[in-house]
Amino acid sequence: MPDSTGDSRTAFQVALTPSGRQGQVPRGANLLKAARQLGVELESICGGRQTCFKCQVAVEEGRFPKLGLTSRADHLTPLTPQEETYFAEHNITGRRLACACQVQGDLLIAVPEESQARKQIIAKAATERAIQVDPAVRQVYVEVRQPSLEEVRGDWERLAEALGEQWDLHDLSIDGRALPALQSALRQGGFAVTVSLWQDREVLRVQPGYAEGVYGLAVDIGSTTVVAHLCDLRTGEVLATQAAMNPQVRYGEDLMSRVSYAMSEPQGLARLHRAVILTLNELAEKAAASAGVSTEDVLDAVVVGNTVMHHIFLGINPVELGGAPFALAVDSPLDLRARDLGLSFNPAARLHLLPIIAGHVGADNVAVQLAEEPYAQDKTMLIVDVGTNAEIVLGDRERVLVASSPTGPAFEGAQISHGQRAAPGAVERVRIDPQTLEPFIKVIGYPDWIAPGSVDLPEPAKATGICGSGIIEAVAELYLAGLINADGRFERSAAEVSPRLLLSGRTAEYLLADADQTATGSPIVITQNDVRAIQLAKAALYAGIKLLMAARGVERVDRVVLAGAFGSFISPYHAMVLGLIPDCELEHVYAVGNAAGDGARIALLNRRQREKASWLARWAEHVQMPLEASFQEEFVAALALPHARDPFPHLADSLPEASEERKARPRHRIREKYNKA
Amino acid sequence: MPDSTGDSRTAFQVALTPSGRQGQVPRGANLLKAARQLGVELESICGGRQTCFKCQVAVEEGRFPKLGLTSRADHLTPLTPQEETYFAEHNITGRRLACACQVQGDLLIAVPEESQARKQIIAKAATERAIQVDPAVRQVYVEVRQPSLEEVRGDWERLAEALGEQWDLHDLSIDGRALPALQSALRQGGFAVTVSLWQDREVLRVQPGYAEGVYGLAVDIGSTTVVAHLCDLRTGEVLATQAAMNPQVRYGEDLMSRVSYAMSEPQGLARLHRAVILTLNELAEKAAASAGVSTEDVLDAVVVGNTVMHHIFLGINPVELGGAPFALAVDSPLDLRARDLGLSFNPAARLHLLPIIAGHVGADNVAVQLAEEPYAQDKTMLIVDVGTNAEIVLGDRERVLVASSPTGPAFEGAQISHGQRAAPGAVERVRIDPQTLEPFIKVIGYPDWIAPGSVDLPEPAKATGICGSGIIEAVAELYLAGLINADGRFERSAAEVSPRLLLSGRTAEYLLADADQTATGSPIVITQNDVRAIQLAKAALYAGIKLLMAARGVERVDRVVLAGAFGSFISPYHAMVLGLIPDCELEHVYAVGNAAGDGARIALLNRRQREKASWLARWAEHVQMPLEASFQEEFVAALALPHARDPFPHLADSLPEASEERKARPRHRIREKYNKA
Repeated sequence: MPDSTGDSRTAFQVALTPSGRQGQVPRGANLLKAARQLGVELESICGGRQTCFKCQVAVEEGRFPKLGLTSRADHLTPLTPQEETYFAEHNITGRRLACACQVQGDLLIAVPEESQARKQIIAKAATERAIQVDPAVRQVYVEVRQPSLEEVRGDWERLAEALGEQWDLHDLSIDGRALPALQSALRQGGFAVTVSLWQDREVLRVQPGYAEGVYGLAVDIGSTTVVAHLCDLRTGEVLATQAAMNPQVRYGEDLMSRVSYAMSEPQGLARLHRAVILTLNELAEKAAASAGVSTEDVLDAVVVGNTVMHHIFLGINPVELGGAPFALAVDSPLDLRARDLGLSFNPAARLHLLPIIAGHVGADNVAVQLAEEPYAQDKTMLIVDVGTNAEIVLGDRERVLVASSPTGPAFEGAQISHGQRAAPGAVERVRIDPQTLEPFIKVIGYPDWIAPGSVDLPEPAKATGICGSGIIEAVAELYLAGLINADGRFERSAAEVSPRLLLSGRTAEYLLADADQTATGSPIVITQNDVRAIQLAKAALYAGIKLLMAARGVERVDRVVLAGAFGSFISPYHAMVLGLIPDCELEHVYAVGNAAGDGARIALLNRRQREKASWLARWAEHVQMPLEASFQEEFVAALALPHARDPFPHLADSLPEASEERKARPRHRIREKYNKA
Repeated sequence: MPDSTGDSRTAFQVALTPSGRQGQVPRGANLLKAARQLGVELESICGGRQTCFKCQVAVEEGRFPKLGLTSRADHLTPLTPQEETYFAEHNITGRRLACACQVQGDLLIAVPEESQARKQIIAKAATERAIQVDPAVRQVYVEVRQPSLEEVRGDWERLAEALGEQWDLHDLSIDGRALPALQSALRQGGFAVTVSLWQDREVLRVQPGYAEGVYGLAVDIGSTTVVAHLCDLRTGEVLATQAAMNPQVRYGEDLMSRVSYAMSEPQGLARLHRAVILTLNELAEKAAASAGVSTEDVLDAVVVGNTVMHHIFLGINPVELGGAPFALAVDSPLDLRARDLGLSFNPAARLHLLPIIAGHVGADNVAVQLAEEPYAQDKTMLIVDVGTNAEIVLGDRERVLVASSPTGPAFEGAQISHGQRAAPGAVERVRIDPQTLEPFIKVIGYPDWIAPGSVDLPEPAKATGICGSGIIEAVAELYLAGLINADGRFERSAAEVSPRLLLSGRTAEYLLADADQTATGSPIVITQNDVRAIQLAKAALYAGIKLLMAARGVERVDRVVLAGAFGSFISPYHAMVLGLIPDCELEHVYAVGNAAGDGARIALLNRRQREKASWLARWAEHVQMPLEASFQEEFVAALALPHARDPFPHLADSLPEASEERKARPRHRIREKYNKA
């Protein structure tokens, strides 16, 4: 019998946009289910009860000849009272809840972005990246049979049954910490509850009635900095990002000094472990507070870090990583309970650690690869993550090689006479006028460039030392200005034209900042030894890169990714002048900031990416540097500065603009305008 | 080519005793493997490395025509140096290590009890019971590939590989708490370690080299008493048993007062929970100390208790169990980590809770059934576990029915005017001379019966009150002596012949102990209300039993098991006089003491029994008492005392022997010689 639309067919044509899915749907079919059958998963927490209002769609009215249908709003059953109330209250027109209406005619249904399950979120970075949201922890709403004298099964057993019937979830278990709240949640909610599930296998939390809001933490534990992103696990949105100094710094600046602290101090490991756990708890607390949520609602976390950080985080003594053969305690991905490490999120919160590739290629590297996807590239990608050890990834979709090159800590400002960590007061950028041989410097925490001979500087402009990016630029600039030669030796003759070059016996040093430009009242100089330290470090890095290139059989790389905080502040031009990285089109050199944190976020938001990480850690080929006989040879060859004095004339650096500010966005693409001239 | 025994066959006949297994074994076969192939599993921790010395066997020499073989010691390869050293050091002759010798001829091999894997241990109780030892946690010795620069996999991954190759154990995980000790254990043990595994799935502990000793705790949390048995998980032996008062008693004597404490006090649940956890830790500590082991070596525990104890132990508020419909939070068996409840065993120790049958039929009842096996009986078995609620099990191999009958706490001495818990000073036994109507009493903590009119009693002989078994005997004896009639009313006329019967207005009471026989200085009396309370309790119990008998369609029971501490001290004769239990041959009435603790021990020592418990909890049929319309009828009918005054003349009780001692063995069969005359 024909209905009000005068159409007596028993099935209709339904198309969905933007997916383009289309097919026959029987008359009276529920639109939510029909969309699912056509392959379009709509967001739904309440399971079709008109409670969560997540499955909103719109009818595109009109004649669509290509689709072979005429779509009308009244091809759906009329608005339900629940829909009317909700849409009126929220001032929404033209929308329907897919779960509330039945198909009565042909339809073209528009599914807005926010109604799509497994929606994609776009990372805000310049290198655009889509993350499909398919988290390990999700919430579902479920109605449970009430207990009675005839029904002796426990509340949990009836809840499990309801999850089976209403959500097709089977063989579930429940975390012991979720059990105590179960009975009151059921009764408060009138035997309707919202359940948070881990991997569709384990119940982590039961809340009364309909509840919304489940969050996760993506954490990168760096040697120097710990960064935590608080994410909404349903939308994928980053609600807050918090960072803190790694408190282990007080027990040892670099990784190896922490390893020896853990080895030699009886309570050393426990102190290192507790310090980072405490910091993570504080970061979680701060991030939650700033996002207006409770850490009680944090139910999942993904943690990455280098192998030493990874082991200490787990309470494992990193002593074996202090020497060959650098044996790892564990390299597989780990699924743990956050409480077992003393993390004070929800008591049942889970914790995932990405896998490790080798003794010096940690979970942070796996995370970087998840973010940068070298394994999905047609062209050769080189990823360099500079720290105490430089981790190098070289590959494409056919092979990915990884190695760790023992650069030492010079790039982090250690072993440099006035070196320091990148912190306020550190000289981070240097330009030397090739005519006058006078230096311009930029200090972290002060916005302007400081010209040579400036006096009466405000306190924040006074330098305390020089950090990694500063020393790299300084050495490159010394070379470009002719103050050192290709071997790295100071040109003693330059002392005749510049009072900045101070000779002292058989050695020399360059006066970068006068005593009255520094916070200490002592001048900051670049010594011959500093230049040597940078040469050794850059040679180790370059030799590693060359060997991976040889192993992969490529002569050049198409894209260079500089990862890590250091990579964000390094000047690609100066890095190439020094021969830190192979020559490449400058516009194909990217600084990706905290790519490890991005990778952690990807693994937090998408459980398939955890599987990919697990595959990747086995598939990527680890090349052991010290084993390669040719390493020493490449190393020696890489010691010198590789280029003629003006290697890239079209990019020749001008003197700095005074107003140029340090770009501190966590993730950005460096496009310095070297050719402004 | 013939060997020294002149036998050129390529296979030999090997028989094993006591199993009787027999078969062909190829020349040169390892005896340990050959035995396994013939279906005889020998104990082995080291996996055939002549390290654990567990697989000892003996060759039975001689001609065995029925077996068709002649067995000689030299049909095995000669003693290895390891065997020689070990047997010499331990002064053992005639033994071989099965793993160390190869078959060279026909053999009859004797496998001593201690070399059998899955050995049976025999409970010491009178009702003999065999437990097959097949625990959830076991140890294996394994040798692990060493790390190298070429071998970047972690120590755990190589250990898992070795467990796969050497023990056929796959898909293993490792507890996060076991990880930190992994690397040092491997290195201390020269890359040989002993691994403790849970359910052949998860590694709980890694110890250097060859290690032996893994223990478990079987715990029964009773409302009044907590009992813990420390067991050797390899041998099944009980190394120590410790008991303590349930510390929750201070918050409420009986279950319902604890439920209301948890309901009404904001910190009530937390206090109750912590109290029992603390006690368990203390018991474990004491048991371990007395057995000379460390709680660090306790890797598994099975805990049973009634539903309220079970919930509080898990930190679940028992409020729902305080009223209909008595909804359980969970009834399934649970596998947890002991640390999650604050139990301080090994940090990775596991914890198993047996399932629950219904709101008032708890894991303790399941444990009692595991111990008594009603589901395996040809004849009808009745199990009565008396507490605040009496749990009743009636069944046989075809059906098992369970019910909980609301007896109230009278049987525990509550609601009785001079009632008290069974503790030193409590009157536990009573005899009334039917001629003189004078009472003989026995007091807990004093060995002798106290005659009427005794004066100058030592302090321990002075009564403080009357406990459950005492009040039951007192009421039965009052009836047998004609002091109360079948309705339970005092025979006021008896006051004329005995000064013990004190009339007071329309009521009366019996003077059980004079003021100078008590610790308080006040006399102890049995009042009309006391008799009524016992009548109500016994009627509830008996009505429950009768209804289960009707449901099962039986008119009598063949065997009565009295479980629980109370059951151990109850006099079956008096229980039958009162009509507490149905009539049955007195010699088929057993008191099984802490059968729940025995059941916990069975589940601790045999993981298949855990599966059986899980099956049982679903299979047993719960009969809801208040639902049965006929309950009220049976209850009223059961109020009266059922028998003529001298119901079992052949068993007629004599006056007590002064020297009779309280039988306090935890598990014994009552065979009181009532007919001694």
